[in-house]
Amino acid sequence: MTHALLMSSSRKDALGYLEHASDQLRTVLDGTSRRVLFIPYAAVSFSYDAYETLAAPPFEAVDAQLTSIHHHNDPVAAVREADVIAVGGGNSFALLSRLYGAGLVDEIRRRMTEAGTRYIGWSAGTNVATPTIRTTNDMPIVEPPSFSALGLVPFQINPHFIPGKPQGHNGESREERLAEFTVINPGEEVLALVEGSALHVTDGHGEILGERKALVFTGGAPVRDIRPGQRFELGELSGPVG
Amino acid sequence: MTHALLMSSSRKDALGYLEHASDQLRTVLDGTSRRVLFIPYAAVSFSYDAYETLAAPPFEAVDAQLTSIHHHNDPVAAVREADVIAVGGGNSFALLSRLYGAGLVDEIRRRMTEAGTRYIGWSAGTNVATPTIRTTNDMPIVEPPSFSALGLVPFQINPHFIPGKPQGHNGESREERLAEFTVINPGEEVLALVEGSALHVTDGHGEILGERKALVFTGGAPVRDIRPGQRFELGELSGPVG
Repeated sequence: MTHALLMSSSRKDALGYLEHASDQLRTVLDGTSRRVLFIPYAAVSFSYDAYETLAAPPFEAVDAQLTSIHHHNDPVAAVREADVIAVGGGNSFALLSRLYGAGLVDEIRRRMTEAGTRYIGWSAGTNVATPTIRTTNDMPIVEPPSFSALGLVPFQINPHFIPGKPQGHNGESREERLAEFTVINPGEEVLALVEGSALHVTDGHGEILGERKALVFTGGAPVRDIRPGQRFELGELSGPVG
Repeated sequence: MTHALLMSSSRKDALGYLEHASDQLRTVLDGTSRRVLFIPYAAVSFSYDAYETLAAPPFEAVDAQLTSIHHHNDPVAAVREADVIAVGGGNSFALLSRLYGAGLVDEIRRRMTEAGTRYIGWSAGTNVATPTIRTTNDMPIVEPPSFSALGLVPFQINPHFIPGKPQGHNGESREERLAEFTVINPGEEVLALVEGSALHVTDGHGEILGERKALVFTGGAPVRDIRPGQRFELGELSGPVG
């Protein structure tokens, strides 16, 4: 049974890296070894060493020790031995390409669903936890073998959700992009998480962590809110609130 | 020899649909039948009929007649008979998926390079004219069979280019996204076009149309400007200006 913390972003407002997330990290780390295997594959313009140095302190702040998978000779074995995996943000297309390249997509999915390994993701690390990366905000700078991803939850997530559009530019708003997704993919659902928010998944249920409501986009229905603290069945994201 | 007008956007500032583009359209339409075959496949949340109604008037303004391909029973034959093709903006992933679905990718490329058919694209229609859609700004709402596209020019284009980033949000700036592209794809070049600008391609050469300079992003070199009116060889985008 999947136990996961899927965060929208590494940063909230002017806070430091994952500084807003201490309570969220404690929620998923309680009851584990607090030894976290870090997957830095979403980093493109900085090194895996630099990414590990950036990501370790907020884990130390909650008494957890983070070690990057690039120090292991056999990444599949490293995943098999981990009881907590953290997948950081960056570019979702680079991340998914490298997960396939290292043979980790099936292995992570299997460990999450069969062995109880816990999953922590933020930004691109949250995108790859959903069925596909079709609701990423990232530029498709590299072509992965498939858009199919880990599928730890049965719906899409849009991280870094922000309403409206910038002035003076004719690009689409995020709402327009997600509405297009629901038109071309009828019957599918997207959970939109503002920066600083997260989805906590346990026992087939979800709960929004953070201060602000999440939004659910689905075809042919008005956009729906989910309030922080409101527990819902993963399979009934756009259904009535229990 | 490819003759193409690749526009950044359908809109500029507060002007109407393609209203800024009359002179640019005349440049590529002169010497043709002025009968334009329109490909509306990038439209997702509105109909092909509605898109044709939107796109026809700016062509009428330059004495050209636009007819959408969805009125033809055989889209491949329609492309084969056209002497001007216009591919409109919308979602690049939907557009490329539907071009593959209709069997048009190879056919359009062949007609452009072998028969002298002229190509007009804007936004997503410009993305698919390049080797791949890896520098689109669009959400990957549907997975095409491949990112490979028409390759009418030998470099990537980023339409709707805008410098900097919006306040109060932690997403990447466009410069950061394009820099990531050049890191993961060393040796490749990206031409960034601000809204209202276009690339005019004739005889293996390019020229920027519009009022503002274009930018060239390539790995390991500073960002380079190309001024409007400055003619350059397509194969030497990041080389010295001739």
